[in-house]
Amino acid sequence: MYEYEHDGAEIYRRSFATIRAEADLSRFPEDVAQVAVRMIHACGQVDLTTDIDFSPDVVTRAREALDAGAPVLCDAQMVASGVTRKRLPKDNDVVCTLNDPRTPALARELGTTRTAAAMHLWGDRLDGAVVAIGNAPTALFHLLEMVRDGAPRPAAVVGIPVGFIGAVESKDALAEADLEFLVVRGRRGGSAITAAAVNAIASTVE
Amino acid sequence: MYEYEHDGAEIYRRSFATIRAEADLSRFPEDVAQVAVRMIHACGQVDLTTDIDFSPDVVTRAREALDAGAPVLCDAQMVASGVTRKRLPKDNDVVCTLNDPRTPALARELGTTRTAAAMHLWGDRLDGAVVAIGNAPTALFHLLEMVRDGAPRPAAVVGIPVGFIGAVESKDALAEADLEFLVVRGRRGGSAITAAAVNAIASTVE
Repeated sequence: MYEYEHDGAEIYRRSFATIRAEADLSRFPEDVAQVAVRMIHACGQVDLTTDIDFSPDVVTRAREALDAGAPVLCDAQMVASGVTRKRLPKDNDVVCTLNDPRTPALARELGTTRTAAAMHLWGDRLDGAVVAIGNAPTALFHLLEMVRDGAPRPAAVVGIPVGFIGAVESKDALAEADLEFLVVRGRRGGSAITAAAVNAIASTVE
Repeated sequence: MYEYEHDGAEIYRRSFATIRAEADLSRFPEDVAQVAVRMIHACGQVDLTTDIDFSPDVVTRAREALDAGAPVLCDAQMVASGVTRKRLPKDNDVVCTLNDPRTPALARELGTTRTAAAMHLWGDRLDGAVVAIGNAPTALFHLLEMVRDGAPRPAAVVGIPVGFIGAVESKDALAEADLEFLVVRGRRGGSAITAAAVNAIASTVE
């Protein structure tokens, strides 16, 4: 016989209470703290706080965008899959073009990864969007290049690619660009943390 | 101008080389080491090795199952979404019943979470399956209860739920059950690490 909590709402309540008791959220504004709590929930590590960095208005701007109906543009299907649709305020579109049939040829043409090439298919939807990059450093670098070269500007960028080659540098580059940003410095990141950040931005319900 | 590696294959090669250079894989058999490398790749943390635990034949048994056409049964849509279909040896089904229309009523009837209730819809497909639980501790506990109560036995269980309430205990319980298992002890885990483990089991290609 296993003894465990069966009530989903109670599991959430106790999880978030544990995180707030253990995590040092003191340096975050209230709206970023709420997002940080959900990011921690997705990875099981309260010390994620040490690596979270942000522009002060990122949550405000991202929420305004979603409230205005902006889409969530994702680099990976797992990120899109992790966005809880019922939390979105305007039944916002959640877009991932990685598996679009045009993407492989575009990647060869541009000499980059499929993930980076897929972003060109976002087109004008980038204007005022919430971008969520949780997998590929190349996608984040390429987004910065696109904006530098005149692409429409997103309202906010949740840029949390994970890994060993380019992840650190791509997130540092985002934090230095002139965009509203939320990142996890260092190697940590990934689709689960990224989707959790979007879910917390979309709704303050815990 | 950003300087970064654009070639996807080269990024993978250098990522896995970095992980093998930094991670202590000495206590793993070769097949588990290869899976561990991909799990590390998904979370950006080489010290994940300290928490990985397994039954010695888990990778062998899971591979045999997939090679025989067994399905991958997932607790969460993000896990299912993260399984790379082209790595699967027999175009195996990847199943997640969480969003099945019957699941909410079943959860009320059984007095448990939707995630746990959804597993009842797997039915006889559990027999010889590879189970991948990357989100809900209640799902893992409930799987153990179902098998104890006479449900068909899976070939292997990748049990890597994340979080603060029940995750640690559910993974400890799996490791003590009479099943082939792969876990990450402690709070760490989640859909990305779980899907990565399945992807590494499905194919040795790096």
